Amino acid sequence: MKKHPLRKLKKLRPKKISASVDSPVYVGDIDTTNLAKPTISKILYDAAEIVECVLTAADLATFKPDPNKKLWLNVHGVHDVDLIKQIGAIFKLHPLVIEDILNTEQRPKIDEFDDYIFLETRNFYYDRTTMSATSEQISLVLGHNFLLTFQERATGAFEPIRERLRASRAQIRELSVDYLAYCVLDSIVDRYFNVLEDVGEDSEELENLLLTKPSINELHSIHQLKHVSIELRRAVWPLREVLNSLIRNEKGFFKPATMPYLRDVYDHTVNFIESLESIRDTLSSMMDIYMASMSQRVNLELRALTVVTMLFMPATLITGIFGMNFDDMPWLKHKDGFYWALGLMFSIATIMLLIFWRRQWVSRSVFSTDDSNK
Amino acid sequence: MKKHPLRKLKKLRPKKISASVDSPVYVGDIDTTNLAKPTISKILYDAAEIVECVLTAADLATFKPDPNKKLWLNVHGVHDVDLIKQIGAIFKLHPLVIEDILNTEQRPKIDEFDDYIFLETRNFYYDRTTMSATSEQISLVLGHNFLLTFQERATGAFEPIRERLRASRAQIRELSVDYLAYCVLDSIVDRYFNVLEDVGEDSEELENLLLTKPSINELHSIHQLKHVSIELRRAVWPLREVLNSLIRNEKGFFKPATMPYLRDVYDHTVNFIESLESIRDTLSSMMDIYMASMSQRVNLELRALTVVTMLFMPATLITGIFGMNFDDMPWLKHKDGFYWALGLMFSIATIMLLIFWRRQWVSRSVFSTDDSNK
Amino acid sequence: MKKHPLRKLKKLRPKKISASVDSPVYVGDIDTTNLAKPTISKILYDAAEIVECVLTAADLATFKPDPNKKLWLNVHGVHDVDLIKQIGAIFKLHPLVIEDILNTEQRPKIDEFDDYIFLETRNFYYDRTTMSATSEQISLVLGHNFLLTFQERATGAFEPIRERLRASRAQIRELSVDYLAYCVLDSIVDRYFNVLEDVGEDSEELENLLLTKPSINELHSIHQLKHVSIELRRAVWPLREVLNSLIRNEKGFFKPATMPYLRDVYDHTVNFIESLESIRDTLSSMMDIYMASMSQRVNLELRALTVVTMLFMPATLITGIFGMNFDDMPWLKHKDGFYWALGLMFSIATIMLLIFWRRQWVSRSVFSTDDSNK
Amino acid sequence: MKKHPLRKLKKLRPKKISASVDSPVYVGDIDTTNLAKPTISKILYDAAEIVECVLTAADLATFKPDPNKKLWLNVHGVHDVDLIKQIGAIFKLHPLVIEDILNTEQRPKIDEFDDYIFLETRNFYYDRTTMSATSEQISLVLGHNFLLTFQERATGAFEPIRERLRASRAQIRELSVDYLAYCVLDSIVDRYFNVLEDVGEDSEELENLLLTKPSINELHSIHQLKHVSIELRRAVWPLREVLNSLIRNEKGFFKPATMPYLRDVYDHTVNFIESLESIRDTLSSMMDIYMASMSQRVNLELRALTVVTMLFMPATLITGIFGMNFDDMPWLKHKDGFYWALGLMFSIATIMLLIFWRRQWVSRSVFSTDDSNK
Amino acid sequence: MKKHPLRKLKKLRPKKISASVDSPVYVGDIDTTNLAKPTISKILYDAAEIVECVLTAADLATFKPDPNKKLWLNVHGVHDVDLIKQIGAIFKLHPLVIEDILNTEQRPKIDEFDDYIFLETRNFYYDRTTMSATSEQISLVLGHNFLLTFQERATGAFEPIRERLRASRAQIRELSVDYLAYCVLDSIVDRYFNVLEDVGEDSEELENLLLTKPSINELHSIHQLKHVSIELRRAVWPLREVLNSLIRNEKGFFKPATMPYLRDVYDHTVNFIESLESIRDTLSSMMDIYMASMSQRVNLELRALTVVTMLFMPATLITGIFGMNFDDMPWLKHKDGFYWALGLMFSIATIMLLIFWRRQWVSRSVFSTDDSNK
Repeated sequence: MKKHPLRKLKKLRPKKISASVDSPVYVGDIDTTNLAKPTISKILYDAAEIVECVLTAADLATFKPDPNKKLWLNVHGVHDVDLIKQIGAIFKLHPLVIEDILNTEQRPKIDEFDDYIFLETRNFYYDRTTMSATSEQISLVLGHNFLLTFQERATGAFEPIRERLRASRAQIRELSVDYLAYCVLDSIVDRYFNVLEDVGEDSEELENLLLTKPSINELHSIHQLKHVSIELRRAVWPLREVLNSLIRNEKGFFKPATMPYLRDVYDHTVNFIESLESIRDTLSSMMDIYMASMSQRVNLELRALTVVTMLFMPATLITGIFGMNFDDMPWLKHKDGFYWALGLMFSIATIMLLIFWRRQWVSRSVFSTDDSNK
Repeated sequence: MKKHPLRKLKKLRPKKISASVDSPVYVGDIDTTNLAKPTISKILYDAAEIVECVLTAADLATFKPDPNKKLWLNVHGVHDVDLIKQIGAIFKLHPLVIEDILNTEQRPKIDEFDDYIFLETRNFYYDRTTMSATSEQISLVLGHNFLLTFQERATGAFEPIRERLRASRAQIRELSVDYLAYCVLDSIVDRYFNVLEDVGEDSEELENLLLTKPSINELHSIHQLKHVSIELRRAVWPLREVLNSLIRNEKGFFKPATMPYLRDVYDHTVNFIESLESIRDTLSSMMDIYMASMSQRVNLELRALTVVTMLFMPATLITGIFGMNFDDMPWLKHKDGFYWALGLMFSIATIMLLIFWRRQWVSRSVFSTDDSNK
Repeated sequence: MKKHPLRKLKKLRPKKISASVDSPVYVGDIDTTNLAKPTISKILYDAAEIVECVLTAADLATFKPDPNKKLWLNVHGVHDVDLIKQIGAIFKLHPLVIEDILNTEQRPKIDEFDDYIFLETRNFYYDRTTMSATSEQISLVLGHNFLLTFQERATGAFEPIRERLRASRAQIRELSVDYLAYCVLDSIVDRYFNVLEDVGEDSEELENLLLTKPSINELHSIHQLKHVSIELRRAVWPLREVLNSLIRNEKGFFKPATMPYLRDVYDHTVNFIESLESIRDTLSSMMDIYMASMSQRVNLELRALTVVTMLFMPATLITGIFGMNFDDMPWLKHKDGFYWALGLMFSIATIMLLIFWRRQWVSRSVFSTDDSNK
Repeated sequence: MKKHPLRKLKKLRPKKISASVDSPVYVGDIDTTNLAKPTISKILYDAAEIVECVLTAADLATFKPDPNKKLWLNVHGVHDVDLIKQIGAIFKLHPLVIEDILNTEQRPKIDEFDDYIFLETRNFYYDRTTMSATSEQISLVLGHNFLLTFQERATGAFEPIRERLRASRAQIRELSVDYLAYCVLDSIVDRYFNVLEDVGEDSEELENLLLTKPSINELHSIHQLKHVSIELRRAVWPLREVLNSLIRNEKGFFKPATMPYLRDVYDHTVNFIESLESIRDTLSSMMDIYMASMSQRVNLELRALTVVTMLFMPATLITGIFGMNFDDMPWLKHKDGFYWALGLMFSIATIMLLIFWRRQWVSRSVFSTDDSNK
Repeated sequence: MKKHPLRKLKKLRPKKISASVDSPVYVGDIDTTNLAKPTISKILYDAAEIVECVLTAADLATFKPDPNKKLWLNVHGVHDVDLIKQIGAIFKLHPLVIEDILNTEQRPKIDEFDDYIFLETRNFYYDRTTMSATSEQISLVLGHNFLLTFQERATGAFEPIRERLRASRAQIRELSVDYLAYCVLDSIVDRYFNVLEDVGEDSEELENLLLTKPSINELHSIHQLKHVSIELRRAVWPLREVLNSLIRNEKGFFKPATMPYLRDVYDHTVNFIESLESIRDTLSSMMDIYMASMSQRVNLELRALTVVTMLFMPATLITGIFGMNFDDMPWLKHKDGFYWALGLMFSIATIMLLIFWRRQWVSRSVFSTDDSNK
């Protein structure tokens, strides 16, 4: 079975919140000292044309949104507080939004403002070698003709969306910027199913191991998978609520034409949650099977001990009997007495074995405990 | 007990969704290479007459719905992407609907559009030999005077409905096409009860086995049945919600006259869910009984060991005593000393057995452990 | 403890539903071949007078309801499909209502129509000998001045109501027919408390047995009672919903004067459900106690084995020592050496026993395991 | 630990309900034959003056409420059916209210009528010696200027309220009769906290016992406390609902000035419920600890057995070896052979003990099992 | 592992409530005799200036709120009943509010009055040495231009807020007093995350200990942490409801500009609750692992016993055989017979060990039980 490094509990605390309203700070578990500079990729598009470029901090100073075109600004690396504040100033983001973007340990949520809506989501990665999950925060700001996305690392997760944007006459270019936001959400949810499939396969492997050769390692793996499923659930439940409130669509940032697509993503999260619950049920059930196998094993060990004791005790008694020092004892003087005694011992042991065999004790205990204790 | 093949976890992931909006693909676990061509059966009927025919792909090109007659189009084999897109074009289905029809791993759901409603349901098959369930997706599109049904395989599940349609003066012919949709839903829910009955009977057999002769096989069977019940629940809970929202009937695709029938199907799903929960409760309870039986068995094994030890230890001690090499020991010189010693051993063993018998230890342990450890 | 026959799972499936809309059939587990003919008792009453008679099938043909009098028609034996259809025709019942009356495995429900409301309820019988529950379906149709009741068997359950009707100047005669329906519902719910009391007493007896002398039989009884409580819950939860929707009273079949009485029945079902949950909690708790007692017993068996081993092993070692064949050994030549050796064995055993006694091992293990293992 | 008498399950069934609408009967578990006569204490008060007296049945006949004064009528002993009916007639109570007052096994509830509201509550008493709870029904009828309270026994529970009434210029005298009703409810809820504190202390004692010296008695005590907590919950949950519906105050029997007080009582019940749930959680957790301790004990018993076996078996083998009858054996002829053999046995045993000691087996098993098996 | 002092159950009962409406008393677990006098710190501020001073009881007598400035009055030490009543009189607080401030065992709640809202919250402290949590009640009264805060002890928890107030041109000075209330709530919730982080780290350490070297101490620690998490949940769940009802903001004490900040605190409590549930899940899972480890250990002990028994029994039998007193036995007369016998014993033991080794019994049982029983 796989090795589990001693799992490190996620830092749970949004640190220094009180202090950060006036002066927000980056909160996250990435070591920010050796990081490459954050990169800002800007895509300006409409049905007719698309312009892609990478912005520098200096470019930002003179940046002005073009009201006639649709804008997608994607930022890798949210540890640069000044940069985020600068972007926040351009798009007039609320200080709390900037704080939330910088604080990368948030749960998925939606905040609605007059000119934009702000979404927090998480992207998950599952490592099958260590059976552990890591996640990354992705923040979205959707205005009437712009979409801002903020990620911690450059993962290339949105490259397929860019590809579709580049294709001329693509539906995505013609539709409003809310459809682009849908595509981003869809690719995030899509990623969850990758994770779920990996977890499902690990769970399945574990189940087979458990039914053939249970050991204490499987117990730890069950524990580990349970942990991953708890983390996934913590991320997806609130995302479902977020999507649900987007569908109710009170502020009108999503157009009616995009609604069926949003409902589709929503259905996927529901589907995901149910599959996850089903995996959790299976894990609980596997825990029961493990405990039952252990109990079964105690039985088999005991039986082995009982069988051995029963086989040897009568023979030992017989040797004791013929080892007594009475003057007058039968068989002792006889030439074949010794062999008669041995025969008696052997006969009793054989009869015992026959009884055990008829009760199916022997075949399943003494000689095959570890190989087939199913 | 039955054999369980190592269960294969269902593919949980609606693959390539992002990509599929522009170009939908078939998602499912049927090997599509050797499949027969999909068949499209068309039934055009009204109260007066009924016309049945099988359409080819070529027929579809020239197909035009007749607005005065009720149309039922049933498609076997949803792996033919082009065909489904062609049908989608004729009935002006939303691209997401076509994608959902092709993706056969969806959960039951309802999507309402202006001109039709789209329903996803699942048909279940339970194999009592392997104690495992398989399911197939059935998609319904109900318009104002047409019903489309899409299945993966030709299972003949809807043949009884066709029979009723063919009968002249049948109520089903006179009523609107929504009544036909009800009949399809009813036959699907009806099938669930077949599955439930089989599962219930397996659970009952298992319970009897558990009360008479528990073994580790029963544990695996319980696990297997739990798994089936989880899958069934995952399919029927959302179906209940679907039916519930049909009853609220906001779009008016179902006529008031059909409502009592829909409520009836809804009641059946509620009934199904409760029976299922009751089976699940019973399975949990059986798990407890299994664990208790195991614990009981440990007891009996231990008792067997204790009884044997108690029977032989005193006798062995006596042989040891008379085997000591003291010069001056009683009985040794006596002619019958040996028999006196044997008698002593036998008496102690008999007294012990009597004590055990009075405490009901022996009858239930040494001689009958495996046959009647109830 | 009582004997439990191998329980037969209820047939869960409302069979042949699809077929039965056009031609309803009887569904139930009564053997209909040897049954007496169904009996129809008719009671026509108002405040002034009451007329009772038994109708035959022929009478039904010419039956006409009297709009000025209140009518109660009670049918024993719902397996006569033609009769039920005939009654259905007289009172203009919906085909689904007739189907539901004939299908005796329904869950309690309410269906509201324009001219009447249709109620399904279940009557429970608990057999304390087998610790199993049986139930019977009772269907009610309440119109503006008639009440129809349908039962499978003649059980005399409604006789007290008839008695009250026969009394002149009884409140029940003056009030509308909805009060009569309340009386029927009340007598059904009342019956549940009989069952609950029996189950509660069995549970109590079981608990006492468990605290004094637990055995594997108690485990089966707990399982059996759990099963009964699941069945009861399945029947009463929906009944509570039915009563709740009657109290909301949207169709006006129940008069305001009857409302406090309905609320009273509703309170009783809530009370029933809570008592039932409390019994279920107790049963779970008893399961825990059983498992703990088993674990306790393993302990005592082990202790018995350990005590015996500890008592005999030193003595056996001593006999072994004096049985060695060294030429030069102490005590062997001495006249009382043998008795010294016996004394040594006895002393060690006595000291051991003293140690065990001080640790309260002996009193609770070897000599009293089965009688007082509390 | 305390002794638990075999607990008597509460009579759960409101008996003879059907019969009792016309002629209500007393339902309760008090033996009514030897009871003192019921006493009716009447308090007539307003801000200026207060008149207290005890009414006899005869007084009741001529009793007339004074519309200008606030009236509190308290009845001890609800088994006197005629008396209750007489009071019911004076205040025009609904027959079902009278039935509910007489039936002392009701769950807390509220019934609103045009001229009064009717409340059922329960008063709890906890006996720490037997760890069992008893309860008594207290019925309240609150009209616009009168309050009726009905108790089974004279417990003096309302004496403090009377004291406050007697004080001149007390707020309670100036406010309306609804404030008096609040005081009664408050004193009832207050009493619950007494019970809760006792249960909490018993639970705490139990926990300490469990951590220091677990035995099967603690298991029964846990079971007993669980039972009490179930009974308390059954009484307080519905009371919370009752108070909640009083706060919503649709009928206006409670004045706005009394509302903050009612909310205060409501908060107390919520607080109570949460504390109770916390005790229940602790009890479940204690059950787990008990099971783990048992499992721990099995381990220690087994270890004791293993240690003893390991210490004696090698020595016994050595005696066996030197007890063999070979002609040519070493040591046997030597003068100190015997002591060499003894030394060998002793050395092996010592080495074994050293190994066990290094693994911390001995210190915790053989010599200290019962005193410190923590 | 850490030592747990025998935990003292919190006093659960708001004592003498009935009595306290007229004359409120202090309820809490602080010994009030040796306490320093309560201190009242007053901060009067607006955007332009800020005045801080400490009030004495005498100052209070002449105290008058300044309607043009924002006032924050913080009281340390709520055991001084007269003082609290005096403050209550100045700000016209409801008697129940004063009672609630004095009763320091309340659950978090909100009470809305016409001129102010009253909030109860709790501050938590976690002691990692004893793994136990203590808490302190903090009461807030928020009027239109004043904020009162009441604490039991001077903990300096609000000092950072004061610092921010003292900074000139701080946002907090410009905004209304409701923003100050938000800061207080925020600093309280922030503190919870400190506690959560400590609990999380203890839980993590415990988990590692459990996977490497489980002992009964870990069981007690799990129990202890469960207890802390129950207490935390009891405090934070109602706080979440309080914040939720503040967000719905029916009385308008919180300005729209403060709303996003309140929602932010609300999100933090939700986040906290989910992290806490996740820790609770982990603790349950750890309990399972502990039980499984215990079961595993029983297995290993049994195996050790079985292995020892199997190694010695055959050898002992052989010594018995050659110790029999037959006249005619093979090997006995032979010079090397003794060594042949020893060789036979040794060979059998070696073969047994080989079999055990191949089945991986020995390496994991006899020689390494305590060091690597993973």
